[in-house]
Amino acid sequence: MTARWHNLEGSTAMRSEYSMGLPAGPALRPMREDTVGLADAATVVRELVVKPAMCGPNARLVAQIGDWTWDTVSRLCGVDAFCASDAQGVPTYLSFYYYELSGDAGFHLRTPTFGDRLQVVSTCYGFGAESILTLHRLAPLERGLPPTLTAQELHEQRHAGCLYVRTFNRWIQRGEAGNRDLQSAAPHGFQHQHLPQAPAQYSPRLAYDGARRQGGFTPAGVLPREACTLDYEVDMGRDLNGVGLLYFASYFDIIDSALARMWRRMGRTDSSFLARLLARQRVVFLGNTDAGAALSIELQRWVDAGDAAHEMFTVRVLERDTGRLLAIAELS
Amino acid sequence: MTARWHNLEGSTAMRSEYSMGLPAGPALRPMREDTVGLADAATVVRELVVKPAMCGPNARLVAQIGDWTWDTVSRLCGVDAFCASDAQGVPTYLSFYYYELSGDAGFHLRTPTFGDRLQVVSTCYGFGAESILTLHRLAPLERGLPPTLTAQELHEQRHAGCLYVRTFNRWIQRGEAGNRDLQSAAPHGFQHQHLPQAPAQYSPRLAYDGARRQGGFTPAGVLPREACTLDYEVDMGRDLNGVGLLYFASYFDIIDSALARMWRRMGRTDSSFLARLLARQRVVFLGNTDAGAALSIELQRWVDAGDAAHEMFTVRVLERDTGRLLAIAELS
Repeated sequence: MTARWHNLEGSTAMRSEYSMGLPAGPALRPMREDTVGLADAATVVRELVVKPAMCGPNARLVAQIGDWTWDTVSRLCGVDAFCASDAQGVPTYLSFYYYELSGDAGFHLRTPTFGDRLQVVSTCYGFGAESILTLHRLAPLERGLPPTLTAQELHEQRHAGCLYVRTFNRWIQRGEAGNRDLQSAAPHGFQHQHLPQAPAQYSPRLAYDGARRQGGFTPAGVLPREACTLDYEVDMGRDLNGVGLLYFASYFDIIDSALARMWRRMGRTDSSFLARLLARQRVVFLGNTDAGAALSIELQRWVDAGDAAHEMFTVRVLERDTGRLLAIAELS
Repeated sequence: MTARWHNLEGSTAMRSEYSMGLPAGPALRPMREDTVGLADAATVVRELVVKPAMCGPNARLVAQIGDWTWDTVSRLCGVDAFCASDAQGVPTYLSFYYYELSGDAGFHLRTPTFGDRLQVVSTCYGFGAESILTLHRLAPLERGLPPTLTAQELHEQRHAGCLYVRTFNRWIQRGEAGNRDLQSAAPHGFQHQHLPQAPAQYSPRLAYDGARRQGGFTPAGVLPREACTLDYEVDMGRDLNGVGLLYFASYFDIIDSALARMWRRMGRTDSSFLARLLARQRVVFLGNTDAGAALSIELQRWVDAGDAAHEMFTVRVLERDTGRLLAIAELS
């Protein structure tokens, strides 16, 4: 068996050092390695196997795609998003402001499972010194799709059977009031001028600005059905991230947990919840909060005016005591 | 900018294909890539950056280490643990039966944060055709520790400031009664004869067999203090894995959530919960269950007989209706 090192720079030295004098194992079939690299100056391509920590009827794939956003920005923009800081050395985080998943019955958030092989193509568009737009396309590797992705493809020329993701991120840092007081920031070394600009008609602002101003998504062509408001307390045992903020992926978890409770209230079965097809999900992150914060989750079900079998949900997440809006979401 | 592909086999072809005719970006500082490879026939070494989806005051690092167990077994044992099946093609899963984390004040489960660079050394010991013991050592990369790990080091010669992990896994498959009926299985192609055997005094059975027979951990040299029993319902929005089983890492989440609730009942602050030092955690997984199952979480606090400032907790997780014991845990 030969050592297989991924790091092209250091691989030879490490391999020879480690292998010296050590016994060989049996002849095993070679393992196909995950790969990542640049396709061009604004496109990153990954080929990887789906693992338990990044899939399932939960928000783990949401979290993994978030890491790919940070990694893509790190590869394209000259700044290490995993440990960025401003010119004064104060940590800056590439916070998620808008996160949209768009799939179909063939490939949605809960489709990938253990051992699936995916191709993930990621690209960035410039949005100034304090924010950035990242697009991802997830597809079965065997599809052999080209290593390219544009806003035009995502909006107008989608491949069927793929999961498209848009994340719009803002560089922030904590203000004096902690998690409840996040402020814009510009990290040292962030290069964005070389990135393409997204055509105006594809700006993420079009997707969230109206909803943000109105305090929630108000879909068109649909009729309101059941609504409910559920309580939730931010769980300090599982909802925070490694820097003590309410983790962006936990918003998805919290929303899905609330939807599961509403599902039961509507008299539906657990198996129908797990089999649900919500091909499109989007969340606007308007505020953060602290461990233990009491939240109100407002859920509203809607049905298509022309087809009551087609439903969608809108969600508002608020701090219960202050009424401060933390997030709005739409699942359809 | 040059493309940096990790896959040694396919890299050259892909790079040249992708780069052709595409514009170059600005000169960016090179990114240090995560690496993985074999140090010898039974040892895998990783060098990586800590990302948001794998750290924090939650069980995300537990889940990530679980993936490393599966990946290590896949590299060492000739079987792809992410999509294994028996000779009849029925899927088999490398389920976690015993999972032990042992750190110290310098490095415990919640120590790593965004951007930290780690060295992770992993090795396997053979335990027959249906189970396997995997050891991991996590350390700051800058420590420059040797790429070796043995059971003797883990038990008797630990480096300070490292997190040691033992996972004992069993190959299982679902019986006719679904998640509540998991049975032993042997995956096709699993090679273990070449692996070393763990010396008898380091067998994981010594760590869990007594507790399993007694239905819980009963630590020695300690005095019982507060106890409580809390309800929990398996959350179908976040607790299941990609094959519909209650995810092993969710047991850690569920236990930590319950501990957080007990913490408050004891009148302690949230900040003291987040700052807690429980350097050692171990869980024995005795059963699985379904989405929506009602659980009882029994928690017991203990203090050292000689030092009441030093506390530990034992936990039992049961199906409420049947009384079936799903897991026992100890946090100290």
